[in-house]
Amino acid sequence: MNGVTASDGPAASPNGTGAPRRRGRPPAGESAGTRDRILDAAREQFSARGYEKTSVRGIAKAAGVDSALVHHYFGTKERVFEAAVEVAFQPVLDQRDSVVEGPLDEVGERMTRMIIGLWENPVTRAPLLAIVRSAVNNDAAAAVFRRLVATQLLRRVAGQLDRPDAELRAELAAAQLVGIAMIRYVIRVEPLASADPEDIVRRVAPVVQGHLTGP
Amino acid sequence: MNGVTASDGPAASPNGTGAPRRRGRPPAGESAGTRDRILDAAREQFSARGYEKTSVRGIAKAAGVDSALVHHYFGTKERVFEAAVEVAFQPVLDQRDSVVEGPLDEVGERMTRMIIGLWENPVTRAPLLAIVRSAVNNDAAAAVFRRLVATQLLRRVAGQLDRPDAELRAELAAAQLVGIAMIRYVIRVEPLASADPEDIVRRVAPVVQGHLTGP
Repeated sequence: MNGVTASDGPAASPNGTGAPRRRGRPPAGESAGTRDRILDAAREQFSARGYEKTSVRGIAKAAGVDSALVHHYFGTKERVFEAAVEVAFQPVLDQRDSVVEGPLDEVGERMTRMIIGLWENPVTRAPLLAIVRSAVNNDAAAAVFRRLVATQLLRRVAGQLDRPDAELRAELAAAQLVGIAMIRYVIRVEPLASADPEDIVRRVAPVVQGHLTGP
Repeated sequence: MNGVTASDGPAASPNGTGAPRRRGRPPAGESAGTRDRILDAAREQFSARGYEKTSVRGIAKAAGVDSALVHHYFGTKERVFEAAVEVAFQPVLDQRDSVVEGPLDEVGERMTRMIIGLWENPVTRAPLLAIVRSAVNNDAAAAVFRRLVATQLLRRVAGQLDRPDAELRAELAAAQLVGIAMIRYVIRVEPLASADPEDIVRRVAPVVQGHLTGP
């Protein structure tokens, strides 16, 4: 992440409205870098400490900016969390189409490989841990999880199934994968915690497929 | 499991809740009732606040006793948690034998009914929520979860399967049920959150059975 100039303080705000600018065009200078640095700090803090124990002040301190600048960019803590999670969740969304668009009789394997792959990759694992830890303990974070996972991912998968119970099927399939993430990556129970990922895919993909398209 | 006297009860209390610190043997008469009251308070605090935000002092206050008495009975916070979880986990252990001992081709349905039944019952749901919330956020609590769930429950189920990969099978079956608990009861994603429990059992029991005894 780039260094930031001294002109990054709240006083440098180009429009001076104080309104959260979440997705707007970055102003001249290095604001885009600042915003990214705040998001990086937010992901680290939420991952390590969970939603409730993370503060806007702590995020600002870790990013080397004033708290007011965090509020300027994002508004509330919930919004910072949502933005951090959205960035963390982007690889899921990027792969979503390839899960949805292939042959329907292999959708279980594609979905399983995507989720296991994201958890196996340390870069994506940390923010996923943050999402799970936060969603389990905080209603605001759970709402973000519901919106991202249920709406952005599962409904898209369900949309391909063309069955009246498609959403329930997609959630039961997701439950298998969420449970594996919990036992293997979060609570780390052996032997699942050390099992070969390919062995897991081989055992689990047919189950996920069965939920989605089985009788 | 309290190995103290049976004649508990508030009337038998020799001194009030503002009692001075007592580090020695607890006075005869109130010990069993006091210990249970501490455990009740601990379960409530851990359920509502999670492991990290619960303190021995807060538990003592909620139970109407001095912190020193909590330390006297249980030692550290981790031990209070473990004792509270063991009591909460007792219904699982009580039903464990009936899961393990029936016909092997129905073990999936028995295991599914037991777990869904415990989560459907508000009395057992609260402490289960406390276990999940705490285990996700705290290593000491995760260790208690591993010991209770993996050692006390899953290894017993695996022991009936008589296969080299029995423990991994039991954990993948548990993962399906843990994931349902997460999505339905913890994060509450619809439509799974409002689905008929019998419908869930009908859909999920064959999957659990497949993990345990399938090819």
